[in-house]
Amino acid sequence: MSTDTLYEHPLNEQVRVYLRLEYLLEQVKSAADISDASQWPQFFKSLFDLMEILEQVQVKGDLVKDLEKQRAKLEAWLDVPHVDVVQLKALLNESRQLQQGLLQSPRLGQKLKEDKFLSSIRQRFSIPGGICSFDLPVLHHWLSLPLAHQQSNTAQWLSSLQGLDEALTFWLRLVRGSTVMQACTVKNGFYQQDVDGAYLLRIQISPDYNAYPLVSGHKSRFAVRFMPFDESRAIADSMSLRLAVC
Amino acid sequence: MSTDTLYEHPLNEQVRVYLRLEYLLEQVKSAADISDASQWPQFFKSLFDLMEILEQVQVKGDLVKDLEKQRAKLEAWLDVPHVDVVQLKALLNESRQLQQGLLQSPRLGQKLKEDKFLSSIRQRFSIPGGICSFDLPVLHHWLSLPLAHQQSNTAQWLSSLQGLDEALTFWLRLVRGSTVMQACTVKNGFYQQDVDGAYLLRIQISPDYNAYPLVSGHKSRFAVRFMPFDESRAIADSMSLRLAVC
Repeated sequence: MSTDTLYEHPLNEQVRVYLRLEYLLEQVKSAADISDASQWPQFFKSLFDLMEILEQVQVKGDLVKDLEKQRAKLEAWLDVPHVDVVQLKALLNESRQLQQGLLQSPRLGQKLKEDKFLSSIRQRFSIPGGICSFDLPVLHHWLSLPLAHQQSNTAQWLSSLQGLDEALTFWLRLVRGSTVMQACTVKNGFYQQDVDGAYLLRIQISPDYNAYPLVSGHKSRFAVRFMPFDESRAIADSMSLRLAVC
Repeated sequence: MSTDTLYEHPLNEQVRVYLRLEYLLEQVKSAADISDASQWPQFFKSLFDLMEILEQVQVKGDLVKDLEKQRAKLEAWLDVPHVDVVQLKALLNESRQLQQGLLQSPRLGQKLKEDKFLSSIRQRFSIPGGICSFDLPVLHHWLSLPLAHQQSNTAQWLSSLQGLDEALTFWLRLVRGSTVMQACTVKNGFYQQDVDGAYLLRIQISPDYNAYPLVSGHKSRFAVRFMPFDESRAIADSMSLRLAVC
Protein backbone atom coordinates (compact mmCIF):
# COMPACT_ATOMS: atom_id res chain seq x y z
CA MET A 1 0.00 0.00 0.00
CA SER A 2 1.16 3.56 -0.70
CA THR A 3 1.52 6.16 2.04
CA ASP A 4 -1.86 7.44 3.15
CA THR A 5 -3.02 10.82 1.89
CA LEU A 6 -4.22 13.28 4.53
CA TYR A 7 -7.30 15.36 3.73
CA GLU A 8 -8.44 18.10 6.08
CA HIS A 9 -11.80 19.80 6.00
CA PRO A 10 -12.81 22.85 8.06
CA LEU A 11 -16.07 22.59 10.00
CA ASN A 12 -16.56 26.32 10.44
CA GLU A 13 -15.84 29.47 8.48
CA GLN A 14 -12.95 30.65 10.66
CA VAL A 15 -11.08 27.37 10.30
CA ARG A 16 -11.67 27.54 6.54
CA VAL A 17 -9.82 30.88 6.52
CA TYR A 18 -7.10 29.59 8.88
CA LEU A 19 -6.36 26.60 6.64
CA ARG A 20 -6.20 28.88 3.57
CA LEU A 21 -3.80 31.20 5.36
CA GLU A 22 -1.67 28.31 6.60
CA TYR A 23 -1.44 26.93 3.06
CA LEU A 24 -0.50 30.32 1.59
CA LEU A 25 2.05 31.03 4.33
CA GLU A 26 3.70 27.70 3.54
CA GLN A 27 3.72 28.54 -0.18
CA VAL A 28 5.23 31.97 0.43
CA LYS A 29 7.90 30.66 2.78
CA SER A 30 8.85 27.75 0.55
CA ALA A 31 9.05 29.97 -2.57
CA ALA A 32 11.08 32.64 -0.74
CA ASP A 33 13.54 30.01 0.40
CA ILE A 34 14.62 28.98 -3.07
CA SER A 35 17.07 31.17 -4.94
CA ASP A 36 15.56 30.22 -8.29
CA ALA A 37 14.05 33.01 -10.38
CA SER A 38 11.25 30.76 -11.66
CA GLN A 39 9.85 30.58 -8.11
CA TRP A 40 9.19 34.31 -7.79
CA PRO A 41 5.82 34.41 -9.57
CA GLN A 42 4.54 31.84 -7.09
CA PHE A 43 5.97 33.79 -4.16
CA PHE A 44 4.19 37.00 -5.17
CA LYS A 45 0.99 35.25 -6.20
CA SER A 46 0.72 33.57 -2.79
CA LEU A 47 1.66 36.78 -0.98
CA PHE A 48 -1.05 38.75 -2.83
CA ASP A 49 -3.61 36.01 -2.15
CA LEU A 50 -2.70 36.25 1.52
CA MET A 51 -3.12 40.03 1.47
CA GLU A 52 -6.52 39.70 -0.20
CA ILE A 53 -7.79 37.33 2.48
CA LEU A 54 -6.43 39.54 5.26
CA GLU A 55 -8.22 42.52 3.72
CA GLN A 56 -11.53 40.67 3.46
CA VAL A 57 -11.61 38.92 6.82
CA GLN A 58 -10.96 40.18 10.36
CA VAL A 59 -8.59 37.33 11.09
CA LYS A 60 -6.96 38.94 14.10
CA GLY A 61 -10.15 39.18 16.17
CA ASP A 62 -11.23 35.63 15.25
CA LEU A 63 -7.87 34.18 16.10
CA VAL A 64 -7.69 35.99 19.44
CA LYS A 65 -11.12 34.58 20.38
CA ASP A 66 -10.17 31.09 19.26
CA LEU A 67 -6.94 31.21 21.26
CA GLU A 68 -9.02 32.16 24.30
CA LYS A 69 -11.41 29.26 23.76
CA GLN A 70 -8.51 26.82 23.51
CA ARG A 71 -7.04 28.27 26.72
CA ALA A 72 -10.34 27.70 28.54
CA LYS A 73 -10.21 24.05 27.44
CA LEU A 74 -6.60 23.72 28.53
CA GLU A 75 -7.32 25.36 31.91
CA ALA A 76 -10.02 22.77 32.61
CA TRP A 77 -7.26 20.15 32.49
CA LEU A 78 -5.37 21.82 35.34
CA ASP A 79 -7.70 20.17 37.88
CA VAL A 80 -7.39 16.70 36.40
CA PRO A 81 -5.08 14.41 38.45
CA HIS A 82 -1.77 13.19 36.96
CA VAL A 83 -1.78 15.84 34.23
CA ASP A 84 1.62 17.29 33.26
CA VAL A 85 1.00 20.68 34.88
CA VAL A 86 4.37 22.08 33.82
CA GLN A 87 3.72 21.42 30.15
CA LEU A 88 0.15 22.66 30.44
CA LYS A 89 1.25 25.93 32.01
CA ALA A 90 3.91 26.36 29.33
CA LEU A 91 1.22 25.99 26.65
CA LEU A 92 -1.06 28.47 28.42
CA ASN A 93 1.80 30.90 28.70
CA GLU A 94 2.74 30.54 25.03
CA SER A 95 -0.90 31.07 24.05
CA ARG A 96 -1.10 34.28 26.10
CA GLN A 97 2.11 35.62 24.58
CA LEU A 98 1.00 34.89 21.02
CA GLN A 99 -2.35 36.56 21.69
CA GLN A 100 -0.60 39.58 23.16
CA GLY A 101 1.65 39.77 20.10
CA LEU A 102 -1.37 39.67 17.80
CA LEU A 103 -3.21 42.36 19.76
CA GLN A 104 -0.21 44.70 19.74
CA SER A 105 0.50 44.27 16.01
CA PRO A 106 -0.91 46.73 13.46
CA ARG A 107 -3.76 45.52 11.27
CA LEU A 108 -2.66 42.25 9.63
CA GLY A 109 -1.31 42.80 6.14
CA GLN A 110 -1.21 46.59 6.60
CA LYS A 111 2.57 46.86 6.20
CA LEU A 112 2.43 44.83 3.00
CA LYS A 113 -0.38 47.01 1.70
CA GLU A 114 1.72 50.13 2.34
CA ASP A 115 4.76 48.73 0.54
CA LYS A 116 5.21 50.78 -2.63
CA PHE A 117 6.92 48.08 -4.65
CA LEU A 118 4.30 45.43 -3.80
CA SER A 119 1.48 47.87 -4.59
CA SER A 120 3.03 48.71 -7.94
CA ILE A 121 3.06 45.09 -9.13
CA ARG A 122 0.07 43.55 -7.34
CA GLN A 123 -2.70 44.32 -9.81
CA ARG A 124 -0.94 42.72 -12.77
CA PHE A 125 -0.88 39.33 -11.07
CA SER A 126 -4.57 38.80 -11.74
CA ILE A 127 -4.11 39.11 -15.53
CA PRO A 128 -3.32 35.84 -17.38
CA GLY A 129 0.37 36.04 -18.30
CA GLY A 130 0.31 39.62 -17.05
CA ILE A 131 3.73 39.60 -15.45
CA CYS A 132 5.99 39.52 -18.51
CA SER A 133 8.90 41.95 -18.51
CA PHE A 134 6.95 44.43 -20.68
CA ASP A 135 3.97 44.33 -18.31
CA LEU A 136 6.03 44.77 -15.19
CA PRO A 137 9.45 46.23 -16.01
CA VAL A 138 9.74 47.26 -12.38
CA LEU A 139 9.49 43.60 -11.28
CA HIS A 140 11.92 42.64 -14.03
CA HIS A 141 14.37 45.18 -12.64
CA TRP A 142 13.88 43.84 -9.10
CA LEU A 143 14.56 40.30 -10.37
CA SER A 144 17.86 41.50 -11.83
CA LEU A 145 19.06 42.90 -8.52
CA PRO A 146 21.53 40.90 -6.39
CA LEU A 147 19.94 37.96 -4.57
CA ALA A 148 20.83 39.57 -1.22
CA HIS A 149 18.60 42.54 -2.09
CA GLN A 150 15.66 40.26 -2.85
CA GLN A 151 16.26 38.20 0.28
CA SER A 152 16.35 41.33 2.41
CA ASN A 153 13.01 42.46 0.94
CA THR A 154 11.33 39.08 1.36
CA ALA A 155 12.60 38.75 4.93
CA GLN A 156 11.05 42.14 5.70
CA TRP A 157 7.72 41.22 4.09
CA LEU A 158 7.62 37.86 5.84
CA SER A 159 8.49 39.41 9.21
CA SER A 160 5.24 41.41 9.06
CA LEU A 161 3.37 38.09 8.91
CA GLN A 162 5.35 36.35 11.63
CA GLY A 163 2.93 37.08 14.49
CA LEU A 164 0.03 35.71 12.48
CA ASP A 165 2.06 32.71 11.33
CA GLU A 166 3.09 31.76 14.88
CA ALA A 167 -0.35 32.22 16.44
CA LEU A 168 -2.02 30.31 13.60
CA THR A 169 0.47 27.46 13.72
CA PHE A 170 0.08 27.23 17.51
CA TRP A 171 -3.74 27.16 17.36
CA LEU A 172 -3.84 24.60 14.55
CA ARG A 173 -1.29 22.44 16.40
CA LEU A 174 -3.51 22.45 19.51
CA VAL A 175 -6.62 21.62 17.51
CA ARG A 176 -4.98 18.90 15.44
CA GLY A 177 -3.41 17.45 18.56
CA SER A 178 -6.71 17.39 20.47
CA THR A 179 -7.82 14.06 18.99
CA VAL A 180 -6.02 11.00 17.70
CA MET A 181 -6.82 9.33 14.41
CA GLN A 182 -9.19 6.40 14.76
CA ALA A 183 -9.69 3.47 12.42
CA CYS A 184 -12.97 3.64 10.56
CA THR A 185 -14.68 1.49 7.95
CA VAL A 186 -16.59 3.23 5.19
CA LYS A 187 -19.33 1.27 3.44
CA ASN A 188 -20.45 2.09 -0.09
CA GLY A 189 -18.32 5.22 -0.23
CA PHE A 190 -20.41 7.16 2.29
CA TYR A 191 -19.89 8.17 5.90
CA GLN A 192 -21.67 10.59 8.23
CA GLN A 193 -21.46 11.49 11.87
CA ASP A 194 -22.96 13.85 14.44
CA VAL A 195 -20.33 15.81 16.33
CA ASP A 196 -20.24 18.42 19.07
CA GLY A 197 -18.72 21.82 18.30
CA ALA A 198 -15.96 20.42 16.07
CA TYR A 199 -13.47 22.57 14.17
CA LEU A 200 -11.76 20.25 11.79
CA LEU A 201 -12.22 16.89 10.12
CA ARG A 202 -9.11 14.92 9.23
CA ILE A 203 -9.18 11.88 6.97
CA GLN A 204 -6.27 9.59 6.14
CA ILE A 205 -6.85 7.23 3.23
CA SER A 206 -4.62 5.22 0.94
CA PRO A 207 -4.50 6.60 -2.62
CA ASP A 208 -4.72 2.97 -3.78
CA TYR A 209 -8.47 3.11 -3.10
CA ASN A 210 -8.76 5.51 -6.07
CA ALA A 211 -11.07 7.66 -3.96
CA TYR A 212 -11.05 11.22 -2.69
CA PRO A 213 -13.50 12.65 -0.13
CA LEU A 214 -16.11 15.35 -0.76
CA VAL A 215 -17.11 16.68 2.64
CA SER A 216 -20.16 18.69 3.54
CA GLY A 217 -20.88 19.68 7.07
CA HIS A 218 -20.49 22.03 9.97
CA LYS A 219 -19.61 21.96 13.66
CA SER A 220 -22.39 19.58 14.65
CA ARG A 221 -22.67 17.19 11.72
CA PHE A 222 -20.76 16.14 8.65
CA ALA A 223 -21.10 13.76 5.72
CA VAL A 224 -18.36 12.43 3.46
CA ARG A 225 -18.97 11.06 -0.01
CA PHE A 226 -15.98 9.29 -1.56
CA MET A 227 -15.63 9.87 -5.29
CA PRO A 228 -13.63 7.72 -7.72
CA PHE A 229 -10.61 9.57 -9.16
CA ASP A 230 -10.42 7.27 -12.16
CA GLU A 231 -14.07 7.12 -13.10
CA SER A 232 -13.69 3.86 -14.98
CA ARG A 233 -12.91 2.10 -11.68
CA ALA A 234 -15.69 1.69 -9.11
CA ILE A 235 -15.14 2.48 -5.43
CA ALA A 236 -14.67 -0.49 -3.07
CA ASP A 237 -17.78 -1.54 -1.11
CA SER A 238 -15.76 -1.30 2.06
CA MET A 239 -12.75 0.95 2.74
CA SER A 240 -10.54 1.10 5.85
CA LEU A 241 -9.33 4.55 6.68
CA ARG A 242 -8.42 6.72 9.63
CA LEU A 243 -10.41 9.67 10.83
CA ALA A 244 -10.20 12.38 13.48
CA VAL A 245 -12.78 14.97 14.43
CA CYS A 246 -10.90 17.78 16.14
CA MET B 1 29.14 46.69 -13.51
CA SER B 2 26.53 43.97 -13.08
CA THR B 3 25.26 41.86 -15.98
CA ASP B 4 22.89 43.86 -18.16
CA THR B 5 19.17 43.27 -17.81
CA LEU B 6 17.25 42.58 -21.01
CA TYR B 7 13.84 44.19 -21.43
CA GLU B 8 11.65 43.35 -24.41
CA HIS B 9 8.62 45.30 -25.51
CA PRO B 10 6.16 44.24 -28.23
CA LEU B 11 5.36 46.80 -30.92
CA ASN B 12 2.14 45.19 -32.05
CA GLU B 13 -0.72 43.24 -30.48
CA GLN B 14 0.26 39.85 -31.94
CA VAL B 15 3.79 40.08 -30.57
CA ARG B 16 2.35 41.06 -27.20
CA VAL B 17 0.41 37.77 -27.20
CA TYR B 18 3.42 35.79 -28.48
CA LEU B 19 5.65 37.09 -25.68
CA ARG B 20 2.98 36.24 -23.08
CA LEU B 21 2.66 32.73 -24.49
CA GLU B 22 6.43 32.26 -24.65
CA TYR B 23 6.70 33.35 -21.01
CA LEU B 24 3.91 31.02 -19.87
CA LEU B 25 5.26 28.08 -21.88
CA GLU B 26 8.62 28.56 -20.16
CA GLN B 27 6.91 28.68 -16.77
CA VAL B 28 4.90 25.54 -17.47
CA LYS B 29 7.91 23.61 -18.75
CA SER B 30 10.17 24.68 -15.92
CA ALA B 31 7.56 23.85 -13.26
CA ALA B 32 6.78 20.48 -14.85
CA ASP B 33 10.46 19.61 -14.86
CA ILE B 34 10.88 19.79 -11.10
CA SER B 35 9.70 16.89 -9.00
CA ASP B 36 8.84 19.17 -6.08
CA ALA B 37 5.22 19.30 -4.97
CA SER B 38 5.44 23.02 -4.15
CA GLN B 39 5.90 23.74 -7.88
CA TRP B 40 2.55 22.29 -8.95
CA PRO B 41 0.39 25.34 -8.19
CA GLN B 42 2.62 27.37 -10.50
CA PHE B 43 2.46 24.69 -13.18
CA PHE B 44 -1.34 24.66 -13.21
CA LYS B 45 -1.66 28.44 -12.84
CA SER B 46 0.55 28.99 -15.89
CA LEU B 47 -1.20 26.25 -17.85
CA PHE B 48 -4.64 27.78 -17.16
CA ASP B 49 -3.36 31.26 -18.06
CA LEU B 50 -2.11 29.79 -21.34
CA MET B 51 -5.50 28.18 -21.99
CA GLU B 52 -7.29 31.45 -21.28
CA ILE B 53 -5.15 33.34 -23.81
CA LEU B 54 -5.60 30.60 -26.42
CA GLU B 55 -9.37 30.79 -25.92
CA GLN B 56 -9.46 34.57 -26.28
CA VAL B 57 -7.10 35.03 -29.22
CA GLN B 58 -6.89 33.27 -32.60
CA VAL B 59 -3.17 32.67 -32.20
CA LYS B 60 -2.93 29.98 -34.86
CA GLY B 61 -4.06 32.22 -37.72
CA ASP B 62 -1.85 35.11 -36.60
CA LEU B 63 1.20 32.92 -36.27
CA VAL B 64 0.67 31.30 -39.67
CA LYS B 65 0.50 34.76 -41.29
CA ASP B 66 3.57 35.97 -39.41
CA LEU B 67 5.54 32.88 -40.44
CA GLU B 68 4.59 33.65 -44.06
CA LYS B 69 5.75 37.26 -43.73
CA GLN B 70 9.09 36.15 -42.33
CA ARG B 71 9.43 33.66 -45.20
CA ALA B 72 8.85 36.44 -47.73
CA LYS B 73 11.66 38.42 -46.07
CA LEU B 74 13.95 35.39 -46.09
CA GLU B 75 13.16 34.62 -49.74
CA ALA B 76 14.22 38.12 -50.74
CA TRP B 77 17.70 37.19 -49.47
CA LEU B 78 17.97 34.29 -51.92
CA ASP B 79 18.92 36.71 -54.71
CA VAL B 80 21.59 38.51 -52.69
CA PRO B 81 25.14 37.44 -53.67
CA HIS B 82 27.33 35.51 -51.17
CA VAL B 83 24.36 34.56 -49.00
CA ASP B 84 24.48 31.12 -47.36
CA VAL B 85 21.78 29.62 -49.57
CA VAL B 86 21.91 26.23 -47.87
CA GLN B 87 21.16 27.69 -44.46
CA LEU B 88 18.53 29.99 -45.88
CA LYS B 89 16.73 27.11 -47.58
CA ALA B 90 16.89 25.08 -44.37
CA LEU B 91 15.21 27.94 -42.51
CA LEU B 92 12.53 28.28 -45.20
CA ASN B 93 11.92 24.56 -45.05
CA GLU B 94 11.67 24.55 -41.25
CA SER B 95 9.25 27.46 -41.39
CA ARG B 96 7.00 25.63 -43.90
CA GLN B 97 7.00 22.47 -41.80
CA LEU B 98 6.11 24.35 -38.62
CA GLN B 99 3.32 26.20 -40.41
CA GLN B 100 2.01 22.90 -41.82
CA GLY B 101 2.09 21.40 -38.32
CA LEU B 102 0.12 24.33 -36.94
CA LEU B 103 -2.48 24.16 -39.71
CA GLN B 104 -3.00 20.45 -39.25
CA SER B 105 -3.35 20.64 -35.46
CA PRO B 106 -6.76 20.93 -33.79
CA ARG B 107 -7.70 24.29 -32.32
CA LEU B 108 -4.90 25.34 -29.95
CA GLY B 109 -5.69 24.49 -26.36
CA GLN B 110 -8.67 22.34 -27.37
CA LYS B 111 -7.22 19.09 -25.99
CA LEU B 112 -6.49 20.78 -22.67
CA LYS B 113 -10.00 22.19 -22.57
CA GLU B 114 -11.45 18.70 -23.08
CA ASP B 115 -9.33 17.17 -20.31
CA LYS B 116 -11.72 16.22 -17.50
CA PHE B 117 -9.20 16.52 -14.69
CA LEU B 118 -7.99 19.96 -15.80
CA SER B 119 -11.58 21.17 -16.22
CA SER B 120 -12.47 19.96 -12.74
CA ILE B 121 -9.74 22.01 -11.05
CA ARG B 122 -9.38 25.05 -13.32
CA GLN B 123 -12.00 27.36 -11.84
CA ARG B 124 -10.63 27.18 -8.31
CA PHE B 125 -7.29 28.64 -9.37
CA SER B 126 -8.78 32.11 -9.66
CA ILE B 127 -9.86 32.16 -5.99
CA PRO B 128 -7.26 33.49 -3.51
CA GLY B 129 -5.93 30.44 -1.67
CA GLY B 130 -8.65 28.42 -3.43
CA ILE B 131 -6.57 25.31 -4.00
CA CYS B 132 -6.26 23.93 -0.47
CA SER B 133 -6.94 20.23 -0.05
CA PHE B 134 -10.52 20.90 1.09
CA ASP B 135 -11.21 23.08 -1.96
CA LEU B 136 -9.76 20.65 -4.43
CA PRO B 137 -9.59 17.15 -2.94
CA VAL B 138 -9.33 15.79 -6.47
CA LEU B 139 -6.06 17.74 -7.01
CA HIS B 140 -4.87 16.62 -3.59
CA HIS B 141 -5.47 13.02 -4.63
CA TRP B 142 -3.61 13.60 -7.90
CA LEU B 143 -0.66 15.06 -5.96
CA SER B 144 -0.52 11.91 -3.85
CA LEU B 145 -0.22 9.63 -6.90
CA PRO B 146 3.20 8.28 -7.91
CA LEU B 147 5.43 10.87 -9.62
CA ALA B 148 5.43 8.73 -12.80
CA HIS B 149 1.65 9.21 -13.06
CA GLN B 150 1.96 12.98 -12.79
CA GLN B 151 4.83 13.07 -15.27
CA SER B 152 2.84 11.02 -17.76
CA ASN B 153 -0.09 13.47 -17.45
CA THR B 154 2.06 16.57 -17.78
CA ALA B 155 3.92 15.12 -20.76
CA GLN B 156 0.57 14.53 -22.46
CA TRP B 157 -0.68 18.06 -21.69
CA LEU B 158 2.58 19.62 -22.86
CA SER B 159 2.62 17.56 -26.05
CA SER B 160 -0.63 19.23 -27.12
CA LEU B 161 1.23 22.58 -26.97
CA GLN B 162 4.37 21.39 -28.73
CA GLY B 163 3.41 22.59 -32.23
CA LEU B 164 2.62 26.06 -30.90
CA ASP B 165 5.79 26.11 -28.79
CA GLU B 166 8.04 25.18 -31.71
CA ALA B 167 6.47 27.58 -34.20
CA LEU B 168 6.49 30.43 -31.70
CA THR B 169 10.10 29.80 -30.66
CA PHE B 170 11.15 29.66 -34.33
CA TRP B 171 9.37 32.91 -35.23
CA LEU B 172 10.70 34.78 -32.20
CA ARG B 173 14.21 33.49 -32.92
CA LEU B 174 14.03 34.86 -36.47
CA VAL B 175 12.68 38.21 -35.30
CA ARG B 176 15.18 38.57 -32.46
CA GLY B 177 18.00 37.53 -34.78
CA SER B 178 17.01 40.01 -37.47
CA THR B 179 18.88 42.92 -35.86
CA VAL B 180 21.94 43.20 -33.67
CA MET B 181 22.06 45.26 -30.50
CA GLN B 182 23.50 48.74 -31.02
CA ALA B 183 25.07 51.05 -28.49
CA CYS B 184 22.89 54.01 -27.64
CA THR B 185 23.18 56.97 -25.29
CA VAL B 186 20.06 58.08 -23.48
CA LYS B 187 19.94 61.69 -22.27
CA ASN B 188 17.75 62.76 -19.34
CA GLY B 189 16.08 59.36 -19.10
CA PHE B 190 14.17 59.68 -22.36
CA TYR B 191 14.58 58.17 -25.82
CA GLN B 192 12.35 58.04 -28.89
CA GLN B 193 12.69 56.83 -32.45
CA ASP B 194 10.71 56.44 -35.67
CA VAL B 195 10.82 52.91 -37.03
CA ASP B 196 9.42 51.04 -40.00
CA GLY B 197 7.06 48.14 -39.38
CA ALA B 198 8.91 46.89 -36.31
CA TYR B 199 7.75 43.96 -34.16
CA LEU B 200 9.85 44.11 -31.06
CA LEU B 201 12.00 46.53 -29.09
CA ARG B 202 14.88 45.07 -27.06
CA ILE B 203 16.78 47.09 -24.47
CA GLN B 204 19.83 45.97 -22.53
CA ILE B 205 20.74 48.13 -19.57
CA SER B 206 22.84 47.68 -16.46
CA PRO B 207 20.76 47.40 -13.26
CA ASP B 208 23.39 49.67 -11.67
CA TYR B 209 21.70 52.64 -13.36
CA ASN B 210 18.74 52.09 -10.97
CA ALA B 211 16.42 52.58 -13.96
CA TYR B 212 13.78 50.49 -15.72
CA PRO B 213 12.15 51.41 -19.05
CA LEU B 214 8.49 52.29 -19.59
CA VAL B 215 7.83 51.91 -23.30
CA SER B 216 4.96 53.29 -25.30
CA GLY B 217 4.76 52.80 -29.00
CA HIS B 218 3.77 50.79 -32.02
CA LYS B 219 5.25 49.50 -35.26
CA SER B 220 6.23 52.96 -36.61
CA ARG B 221 7.29 54.90 -33.52
CA PHE B 222 8.22 54.32 -29.92
CA ALA B 223 9.27 56.29 -26.86
CA VAL B 224 11.05 55.05 -23.75
CA ARG B 225 10.94 56.83 -20.42
CA PHE B 226 13.40 55.45 -17.85
CA MET B 227 12.07 55.45 -14.30
CA PRO B 228 14.13 55.27 -11.11
CA PHE B 229 13.61 52.01 -9.21
CA ASP B 230 14.80 53.53 -5.95
CA GLU B 231 12.95 56.84 -6.03
CA SER B 232 15.35 58.49 -3.63
CA ARG B 233 18.09 58.26 -6.27
CA ALA B 234 17.83 60.40 -9.43
CA ILE B 235 18.45 58.95 -12.88
CA ALA B 236 21.81 59.72 -14.51
CA ASP B 237 21.76 62.55 -17.08
CA SER B 238 23.40 60.25 -19.57
CA MET B 239 23.11 56.44 -19.73
CA SER B 240 24.88 54.03 -22.10
CA LEU B 241 22.79 51.08 -23.10
CA ARG B 242 22.19 48.73 -26.01
CA LEU B 243 19.09 48.67 -28.12
CA ALA B 244 17.66 46.65 -31.01
CA VAL B 245 14.52 47.32 -33.03
CA CYS B 246 13.53 44.00 -34.57
